[in-house]
Order: sequence, then structure tokens, then C-alpha cells
Amino acid sequence: MQKLILVSLQDISEWVGGTLLSSGSEVKMVRAIAPLNRATKDEVAFLAQTKYREQLVSTNAAVVLLSQKDLDWWHHAYPTQALHVDAIVVDNPYAAYAKVATQFVVRQQAPLPLQKIHPSAVVDERARLADDVVVGANAVIEANAVIGAGTRIGPGCVVGEGVVIGESGLLHANVTIYHGCQLGARVILHSGVVIGSDGYGFAPEHGAWLKIPQVGVVIVGDDVEVGANTCIDRGALDATVIGNGVKIDNLSQIAHNVQVGDHTLISANAAIAGSTSIGKHCMIGGGTCIVGHIKIVDGVSVSGATVVTRALTKPGVYTGILPFMEHAQWERNAPVFRHLRELREKIRRLEKNK
Amino acid sequence: MQKLILVSLQDISEWVGGTLLSSGSEVKMVRAIAPLNRATKDEVAFLAQTKYREQLVSTNAAVVLLSQKDLDWWHHAYPTQALHVDAIVVDNPYAAYAKVATQFVVRQQAPLPLQKIHPSAVVDERARLADDVVVGANAVIEANAVIGAGTRIGPGCVVGEGVVIGESGLLHANVTIYHGCQLGARVILHSGVVIGSDGYGFAPEHGAWLKIPQVGVVIVGDDVEVGANTCIDRGALDATVIGNGVKIDNLSQIAHNVQVGDHTLISANAAIAGSTSIGKHCMIGGGTCIVGHIKIVDGVSVSGATVVTRALTKPGVYTGILPFMEHAQWERNAPVFRHLRELREKIRRLEKNK
Amino acid sequence: MQKLILVSLQDISEWVGGTLLSSGSEVKMVRAIAPLNRATKDEVAFLAQTKYREQLVSTNAAVVLLSQKDLDWWHHAYPTQALHVDAIVVDNPYAAYAKVATQFVVRQQAPLPLQKIHPSAVVDERARLADDVVVGANAVIEANAVIGAGTRIGPGCVVGEGVVIGESGLLHANVTIYHGCQLGARVILHSGVVIGSDGYGFAPEHGAWLKIPQVGVVIVGDDVEVGANTCIDRGALDATVIGNGVKIDNLSQIAHNVQVGDHTLISANAAIAGSTSIGKHCMIGGGTCIVGHIKIVDGVSVSGATVVTRALTKPGVYTGILPFMEHAQWERNAPVFRHLRELREKIRRLEKNK
Repeated sequence: MQKLILVSLQDISEWVGGTLLSSGSEVKMVRAIAPLNRATKDEVAFLAQTKYREQLVSTNAAVVLLSQKDLDWWHHAYPTQALHVDAIVVDNPYAAYAKVATQFVVRQQAPLPLQKIHPSAVVDERARLADDVVVGANAVIEANAVIGAGTRIGPGCVVGEGVVIGESGLLHANVTIYHGCQLGARVILHSGVVIGSDGYGFAPEHGAWLKIPQVGVVIVGDDVEVGANTCIDRGALDATVIGNGVKIDNLSQIAHNVQVGDHTLISANAAIAGSTSIGKHCMIGGGTCIVGHIKIVDGVSVSGATVVTRALTKPGVYTGILPFMEHAQWERNAPVFRHLRELREKIRRLEKNK
Repeated sequence: MQKLILVSLQDISEWVGGTLLSSGSEVKMVRAIAPLNRATKDEVAFLAQTKYREQLVSTNAAVVLLSQKDLDWWHHAYPTQALHVDAIVVDNPYAAYAKVATQFVVRQQAPLPLQKIHPSAVVDERARLADDVVVGANAVIEANAVIGAGTRIGPGCVVGEGVVIGESGLLHANVTIYHGCQLGARVILHSGVVIGSDGYGFAPEHGAWLKIPQVGVVIVGDDVEVGANTCIDRGALDATVIGNGVKIDNLSQIAHNVQVGDHTLISANAAIAGSTSIGKHCMIGGGTCIVGHIKIVDGVSVSGATVVTRALTKPGVYTGILPFMEHAQWERNAPVFRHLRELREKIRRLEKNK
Repeated sequence: MQKLILVSLQDISEWVGGTLLSSGSEVKMVRAIAPLNRATKDEVAFLAQTKYREQLVSTNAAVVLLSQKDLDWWHHAYPTQALHVDAIVVDNPYAAYAKVATQFVVRQQAPLPLQKIHPSAVVDERARLADDVVVGANAVIEANAVIGAGTRIGPGCVVGEGVVIGESGLLHANVTIYHGCQLGARVILHSGVVIGSDGYGFAPEHGAWLKIPQVGVVIVGDDVEVGANTCIDRGALDATVIGNGVKIDNLSQIAHNVQVGDHTLISANAAIAGSTSIGKHCMIGGGTCIVGHIKIVDGVSVSGATVVTRALTKPGVYTGILPFMEHAQWERNAPVFRHLRELREKIRRLEKNK
């Protein structure tokens, strides 16, 4: 299915801004990227973790992306032996891998379809689509939506009234964006993503719950990626705001009026409750729950499955994971959790009476 | 995009059943609702939490919705100073806010489309739709579905065979309802909601799992709202039942044969396992897990991220959150969790030997 | 809506490979299956748990599926009294129930539609569909997809380029499968399932995150069922692999490069992080989080809501659930969690000084 792409080591080296060590191999052609231990003689490999350094000995790769530090390690570990694989020295081998893989993918992409708007798509005549927007089969674009150049809307997507999507975006199949929401440039939304659903707001009256209309929107910055089936609710009165470069994994919940700072990562199955503000360059682990109406400063990491119940005012790593154990052991320990305070008091009394 | 709606303070006062204090201002016109500290001179504000009372001093709002208690506080705090903003005194300012916002939204709504059934929608000829049902582009309504007056089915929705939906409902885009499920009146389902998927039932035989057909349905009461990408499974033999006025947030899981009592709230990312019964007027926090086959009585609140492992027979608030800490501190404490029982025994011995 | 199906006890007995005890009743006709305590005189009941044995006394069922052990119990408990209900003795009453219910469902199913490919479906001319494939309204099948005999694709599904689906599969409405993914035979995917979305992979560079293209696929074995709104990400370079007979519940996350062994169960709202390998015949409870890059051996059970932070090298049951308590009690205990290590040290000192 994938087109075969052949590129020279010289090309690869230029893509990553690296230094190709070996003379004479510049014109060697490669066709894909693969892990160091599985790359074949016409594939590019990369060394991104020191624990895989020994794989340099036996790799069959055509060329390896590595750091100067890795190379120095080699010369130290094998002082009498030249590296038998061609090498491109880069500052950041993992980023270099991302760049090479991206270049392959870009070159393998199908050409734009001849019919950019699939005949089965329903595009309101009041929507404004840049010339080279692609709209898939059975997608729906409602009135006054504005879609930027090069953006591709997958089959079955629904883009609501007045939605604004920047250039070079990619909505995979079956994404839903509610009316009035705004996405920046180069935003990627995976299938099942819902942007702009109503926030969870109800006022109690006479034992029942009155719906509080959610009249805000969602504003998503540039270079954001949102994983499959993740939901970002619209603000109650204002906006829910996702900063530039934020990456959110699958099945996460971003409630109304949440603010997520630039370049923050949020892993799968996380739940961020309403009106909470998360800083820039944070890392929120999978399965994390964060309560509403708190502020988390820049540079915070929250371990997966941790429950954050109050503001985090200092950068750092925060954790609250109950260690698992064999079930029988857990059964012995479980009753004690309810009596920790008493244990502490008993210890205090013992210390006093000592 | 939103239509500008102008209404008088007199109208507002009638919407909320309140008392407009200021004489002469009845004809003052307003156009939106906003928080007290951001409302402009033609916006309605509301005071729903005492901690915001001081904002009364500097608000620019045209009028504020507040309680008699708030007003009394003002007179006590500022005995020599009249409230400089017009005021409508109500029993429940938060509910009043909901009502005013709803009135604005209703007036701003687009008129019904001329073509109520979009030409691209696929409506089986055996489906019965009340006269003013709206069906969006590329939606699918299968045989023998019955849809009540005023209900709007969004683009891309799939309404299965024999589904019954009451009047004045709203299915946002890309909702799926499996065959035979029943929704009451005024039900709101957000995008990605799945109602009536098979419950998770398998019988072990010879090391593999036999599927147990799920032949029950889902029955959803009146005035229920279900958040984006939430799933409610059909019963195995009987029905999964969601009571009147229940509000479920995004990405929650309601397993087969669960019963949820009237006016109960279930926040995002909650998981309720099979055959569990939750009472009326309960509040289930986000990220909560509730095991199957238990009964939770009316009036229970479960804090977010709590795991409920047995029946709750008394109303009250229940919590099981492991406090988070700095990671280094957690690493010191973590090993002790597996030895709590031993600690308790050591303390007992120490007490005895004292 | 459901067709009435009448079958004889003799038929039922053959379906389950059981022994029909009562003479003369072979031709008795039944029409459905129901729990022992609610079955009517023309319904089949089953006794799958010993705690329901006493229901044999009063059941109105036409016939009961039970084990020899249950029958022996009856003769012991009621030595002077014959079982008043006809009985079919089977090895595994729960599996027998599954088989009978399946037979009823198969016979009640609607006949295949006359138009197997709904006219509104968009099927690329380069897709290859076996003769009796059914494609629902507004579904989209992209180029080079291959779909096996008897597979039904629900309304609104999107099957990407080059996807391979085996025979007798069932995709409920609004399922999305990304390009290149492969499903075995008899796979059931519930609505909102996303197969093959990009794994969550980003390389840090200059304070931002570079996307790592996810060029692997998802390979799903035979007889797999995946619950509503569950996501299975494609591999980064290789494949994410779901073994034969695996059953995954709703709203779960299977990250890139995960391997799930044959016949493993994964309950709702579970999150399995990238590159983790789960063995065969495991049971992963609801709401569980499992970290990435670990190996879990065959035959492991993980209790619901448990966080698995390291490899599990021995079969067994593992648990890490913080017991919930009344909120006031929790508030007393909560501060102690952060000081467990100190408590242990104090106890050690006390023991030493004793």
C-alpha cells in the first residue's frame, strides 16, 4: 500500500541537520526507518536511549542516527574497532527520528484527490473553504464555517456553524466540532474527537437540575494534536483554551473553562475538571484526575493515575499511586487504611510513655 | 454569529420570578449574561457565591441577580451606601442565572430549517417522525423508529430500528442509538454518545469466551442529559434504566442492567459496573469506579476518583482518594503501603509490652 | 419488534449438548430465555450460581439448564420431592445459557436487506467486498479495503484505505478503522470504536514536541469483541496486536505497540500504555491503568481500578484499591498517608528502645 521512497544518506543528513560521518556513502539509498535491532541494510535506524547502545555492534542498518555522546561511548567501549555502520551525528536522535519518519510519510502520502470535495459531502453554501481544502465522503460542513488552506476533513466529520479551522489541519474520520469553536493551524484531531460539547453545568432547584446554557466556545492553538475519542467542552460563558503545541492523548476529558498552557502533554484517560488552569510545559500522566477551579503552574509533571485535589504552585513531579500487591496481601492490609490516624495516635502515646 | 437580543429588566425579572428593586429601570435593556466582575453596562450579572460579594462594589453590570441574604449583607457591610447597580432579588441566584441564560439561548436559536429532513439523511419509510422533527445531514433513521415532536437529530446520527425518542429532544451530531432503546422527553445527547451497545457478558468454556447475547434495552427517562462519548450499554435480559432528570457527564460508562435513580449526577470518566443500582439524588464524582451488583441508596455522594467496592446503605459522602505528594516523598512512603498490617501488629505488641 | 421463535426442549437440549431429563416433555415449546426467578411457563431458565439454587423451588420456567451438581444438591436438599420443573443437565449452565440465547438471536435476526450496499454508502471502486457483505447507509469504504464474506458494516462507519476485515464480522454504526489495519474473522466492533489512530509519540525539541509519525498498524485476531468508544492505536513502527478471542469493554485505551494475548478480558475504562505486553487468559479489571513497556505473563488478574507500575512475572491476582470510607473519616486519615515512612521509623525506634 505504501509507496516505496528511496533517498540518499545525504538527503537524510540534511533533513535532520546532522553530520554524515562516512565518506563515500552519501549516495547510499535507504527506504524506511526502523529500530536499531531490526533495521535491514536499506533502512535508517536511530539510537535514542543509552540502554540500546550495545545494539550498535550487531545492527544491520544502512545508517544510524546518534549523538556525539553515543559515538564517544563507542570509541571508549570499542577503542580498536571502527563503527561498522554509517552514522549521522545529531543533537537529538529522537527528534531526528521524528523528522526522518515525517519526511518519509510526507513523500508517501497519496496525492490530493481530483474531487477535493467528495460529492457525498454536505457543505453549506455559506461555508468558506480555501481552494485546496479536502472534504471526505459524507462529511458535513455547516454555515459560515471557515476552513484554511490545505486542511483535510475526513469522512463523516461534522464541522458546526461558524467553526474556524486554520491551515494545514487534519481531521480524521468521524470528528465532531460544535458551532463557533476555533482551531489554529496544523491541528490534528483523531477520530471520535468532540470539540465544543456543552460543559457540565446545572443549577439545583426544587430537587431537580436546571441546565445552565454553555454559551462559550473552545479555542485551540496552533500545532495541537488531540487523540481519539477525547472531549473538550465549550466554556460556560467564556472559552475553554488549549495552548499552542499541546498534545492530548485518547479518551481524555477537558471540561469547560479549562486552560491548558503551551506545549503541555496530557496522556490518555485523563480528566481535567472545570475551570482548572494548567501551565505551560506540563506533563499530565494517563488516568490522572484533576479537580476543578485550581491552578497548576508551568513545568509540573503529574504521574499517571494521580488525583490532584489542590493547586500546584511549584514546578516538580507529583505522585499519588497506591502500590498494587498480591490480592491476599492487599486483603490483609486493606482494613488498616481506615485506621491510619489511630495508628499515628497510638504511636504518639507510646512515644510519650516511653 | 449570535443574534443580538435586547430585553428589559422587567422581562428578566419575570423570567426568574424575582423582585426588581429599582424604580425607573424597568425599561432598561440588556443583551447578555456575564460574571459579576466582567459584565458590561448592558449585561446581566449574578451573585451565586458569597465569596464574590465584594464584586458588588465595582461591578459595571446593568443589573445583578442576588439573594435577599446577599442584599442584607450589603446593607450591613455598607450601611451608608446604596447599591449602585440595579438588582433583582431571587430565591436562588444560580438557578436564576440558568433561567436567564436559557431564555437568551432560546431567543438566539436559528429558526427551523425549511427542509426539516435534510435531503442527504436516510430515513426508513417505516420510521414515524412527528411533523416538526428535524433530521440533519447524513443522519440515518432506521425502520420503526418513533421520534416525538420538536426533536432534533444532528448530522451523522444513527437511530436504530424501533428506537423511541420523546418530544423536544436534542441529539447532537454523530450520536448512535442501538435498536429498541427508548428515550423520554427533552433528552439531550452529546456527540459520540452510544446508547444500547452490548453489555460485557461472556461465559467461559474450554479456555475461550462465549458471547452472551444482550437482548435487553436501555430506557432513559425525561430531562436526561448525557455528555460526549459516554456509553450506556443495553441490558443482558432486561433493561438498563436511567431515571428522570439524570445528568451524566462525558466519557462515562454505564454497564448493562445498571439502574440510576432520578436526578442523580454522574461526572466525567466514571465507570459503573453491571447490575449496580444507584439511588435518587446521588452525586457520583468524576473518575469514580463502582463495582457491579451493588446497591447505593438515595442521597449518596461519592467523591471523585473514589472506588466503591461494596453497597452503600446510608446517605452521606464517601471518599477514597490517595493524597498526592511530591514524587520523592511518595517514593519514601510507597513501600510502607504493603506493610500496613505489620505496622499495626507491631504497635499492638508494643502496647502490650508497655 | 422481535420475531417470536418457538423451539422444542429437544432442540434446546441439542443446542447445548445436554441431557433432557424428563420424558414426554421433549416436544414442549419455549420462546425465550429468562432468569430463574422471572421465567414464565414458556421460557427457558438457567441456574448458573449456587446462591440461586433455592429458586428451583418456586420457578415457573418451562425448563431449567443446570449442572449435575445442582441436581444432586436438589435431591439431597429435598429427598422426598421431585424437581417440578423440566431440566436439561449440562456441564456449564452459564455457557449453555449463552448458546441458547445466541440461537434465539440468530433466529430473530432480520433477513439481509435486498440492497446489500445501501445506495447512500460510498464504496471505493478499488475496494473488494465478498458477495454477501452488507454496508449500511452513509458508510464509507475506502480504496483497496478487503471485506470478508458475511461481514456487516453499520451505518456511518468509515473503513480506511487497505483495511482487511475477515468473514462474519460486525461493525456497529459509526465505527472508524484507519488505513492498513487488519481484523480477523467474526470480529465485533461497537459504535464509536476507533482502530488505528496514531499512537501518542512526540520527541522534545527546543521546548516543543515533534510528532513521531505512527507508521505501524493494528492487527486484531479472530473472535475479538471491542466495546463502544474504545480506542486501539496503531503501532509506531510495528503493529499493535490483539490476540484471538480477546474481549475489550467500552471506553478503554490500548496504546501503540501493545500486545494482548489470546482470550484476555479487558474491562471498561482501562488504559494500557504503550509497548506493554499482556499475556493470554488475563483479566484486566475496569478502570485499571497499566504503565508502558512492561510484560504481564499469562493468567494474571488485575482487580479493577488498580495501577500496575511494573512487570508481573507470576500468574495471580493483583490489587491496589484504596478502600473508601465516610468522608469525615477520610479527612482524619488523609494526612497520615504522607507520613507512613516516618510512622514506620518511629515504630522501629520504639521497638529498639523497648
